[in-house]
Amino acid sequence: MPALFNQITFIGIGLIGSSIARVIKQNKLTDKLVAFDTNTHNNNMALELGIIDEKADNLIDAVKDADLIMICTPVKTYKNIATAIAPHLKEGVIISDVGSVKSSVIKEIEPLLPPTAHFVPGHPIAGTEKSGPESGFAELFTGRWFIFTPTKNTSLEALDKVSKIWESAGMQITKMPAEHHDKIMAAVSHLPHLIAYTIVGTADDLRDEELSEVIKYSAGGFRDFTRIAGSDPIMWRDIFLSNKDAILEVLQRFNEDLIALQRAIRWDDGETLEKLFTRTRKIRKEIIDAGQHQPENEKILLSQQTKKD
Amino acid sequence: MPALFNQITFIGIGLIGSSIARVIKQNKLTDKLVAFDTNTHNNNMALELGIIDEKADNLIDAVKDADLIMICTPVKTYKNIATAIAPHLKEGVIISDVGSVKSSVIKEIEPLLPPTAHFVPGHPIAGTEKSGPESGFAELFTGRWFIFTPTKNTSLEALDKVSKIWESAGMQITKMPAEHHDKIMAAVSHLPHLIAYTIVGTADDLRDEELSEVIKYSAGGFRDFTRIAGSDPIMWRDIFLSNKDAILEVLQRFNEDLIALQRAIRWDDGETLEKLFTRTRKIRKEIIDAGQHQPENEKILLSQQTKKD
Repeated sequence: MPALFNQITFIGIGLIGSSIARVIKQNKLTDKLVAFDTNTHNNNMALELGIIDEKADNLIDAVKDADLIMICTPVKTYKNIATAIAPHLKEGVIISDVGSVKSSVIKEIEPLLPPTAHFVPGHPIAGTEKSGPESGFAELFTGRWFIFTPTKNTSLEALDKVSKIWESAGMQITKMPAEHHDKIMAAVSHLPHLIAYTIVGTADDLRDEELSEVIKYSAGGFRDFTRIAGSDPIMWRDIFLSNKDAILEVLQRFNEDLIALQRAIRWDDGETLEKLFTRTRKIRKEIIDAGQHQPENEKILLSQQTKKD
Repeated sequence: MPALFNQITFIGIGLIGSSIARVIKQNKLTDKLVAFDTNTHNNNMALELGIIDEKADNLIDAVKDADLIMICTPVKTYKNIATAIAPHLKEGVIISDVGSVKSSVIKEIEPLLPPTAHFVPGHPIAGTEKSGPESGFAELFTGRWFIFTPTKNTSLEALDKVSKIWESAGMQITKMPAEHHDKIMAAVSHLPHLIAYTIVGTADDLRDEELSEVIKYSAGGFRDFTRIAGSDPIMWRDIFLSNKDAILEVLQRFNEDLIALQRAIRWDDGETLEKLFTRTRKIRKEIIDAGQHQPENEKILLSQQTKKD
């Protein structure tokens, strides 16, 4: 198969950017792979690891010859990036992204791009709590879902080309309106992160001695929350601020449910507790049946084992 | 080494009971291993899997010749068990347990036991979300902590003997007052489970179509909560009812913190969000440094890999 693109440029080459860049390299989907990251460590490391062919010194050099630009930075940076690159784009360039929030992003950057550029908003539902190109790996996406949230201007042909990249990473592809994406992600990803950050923060407020005990005994359950509460702070700050309405709504529902449970505990209502705990067990089973239960680092272990067998 | 005991009897042979029974068998710590479980499936399965030597038909037959009785049932069953077995105990018998709540348990059963019996309350900080003897495995405890909460009556000699069992399972041993144990566990284990049950329940209340999307995209974060929300319903109902005060107190702190975060989102206070998210990332690192980050199923994968190398 000939390369899909002459030049792909990554703006931001952290965990997600470097992981999909690895897939692109392995499958020879572009003749040339360029990256620009304001974090020079990321830029240098990506080049050193052989994930990219070239690092650019500035945004304009990075994008001017690109056929595909992949924005892999925190969502609140998009506006500045779009403003800076808009006058320097090749005609027919495709601009895609991996941001966890879609409506606000589309609203912000679509009007800034020239009509000859094709914007293809997307979001791979995969990740780990780690950051930086040294933490990325090609298997990150295997078996997970990629969601496109095309706008009324999105070219189907451009979407198909970007889609081939994520398919080659082993992802299942789906499409939905940006608003629906943001609502589902508020429940499935943003609320869990918010809760995890809260509970870990609550523990961090304990006296030093108690905190050291919490860490010692974290296998009791606390540990499960710290994984996602170890995610990139800037990225998540931006997500919460960019999907505010959907998050505040689902948070309200969570609060009501938590208060109901609190009341059941206070009034020794074992029946209510048992009923809920039986329902939630069923959902865990459904997630296992859907093959979505394995953390990414466990997937690596498994794939290494299979290679040995 | 000669066996530590002539007969060890398990009351309850589910995930934890069967896992430590496997360790006892492997290390020949008893001449005879007997179990009784009101769930006849567990009883039969444990015998079939060769985890125990004998299954008893009733509590009295189970305990009458035992030197050590390990109670591995939900904590609200203890009182009935103690009442039933008290008149049938061998002189000098040691009675120990693995319950996640200690103060209420001690208060309930210590007065019911004859003065010739030695009660050694304990709690291994390890587990998975699965239930039943078929889900147990000997490596479950490796590298985790075991907490003894001796009372003023607990014989040190008896505690040392029980301690040898958990040491041989690869656990680190510590001691603390029951009230302190319950307070730490409320933060480290009970609150995380309560929150996980709540968030999974909140999702379960969605329309069927939305719920199926939540399951599909659960790798976005939701998945991490479903593991512990898949834990045994009866066991957890009993824990919440038995450690009510400590749980309600830590829940109050969590609620305050969550409301503060909610407010920060509503008022676009990115600085507060970023500050918290940076603090919580540090805690994740400390848990990794303490070697407590790996889920038990990942430990199995790793140990299988090491065996092959």
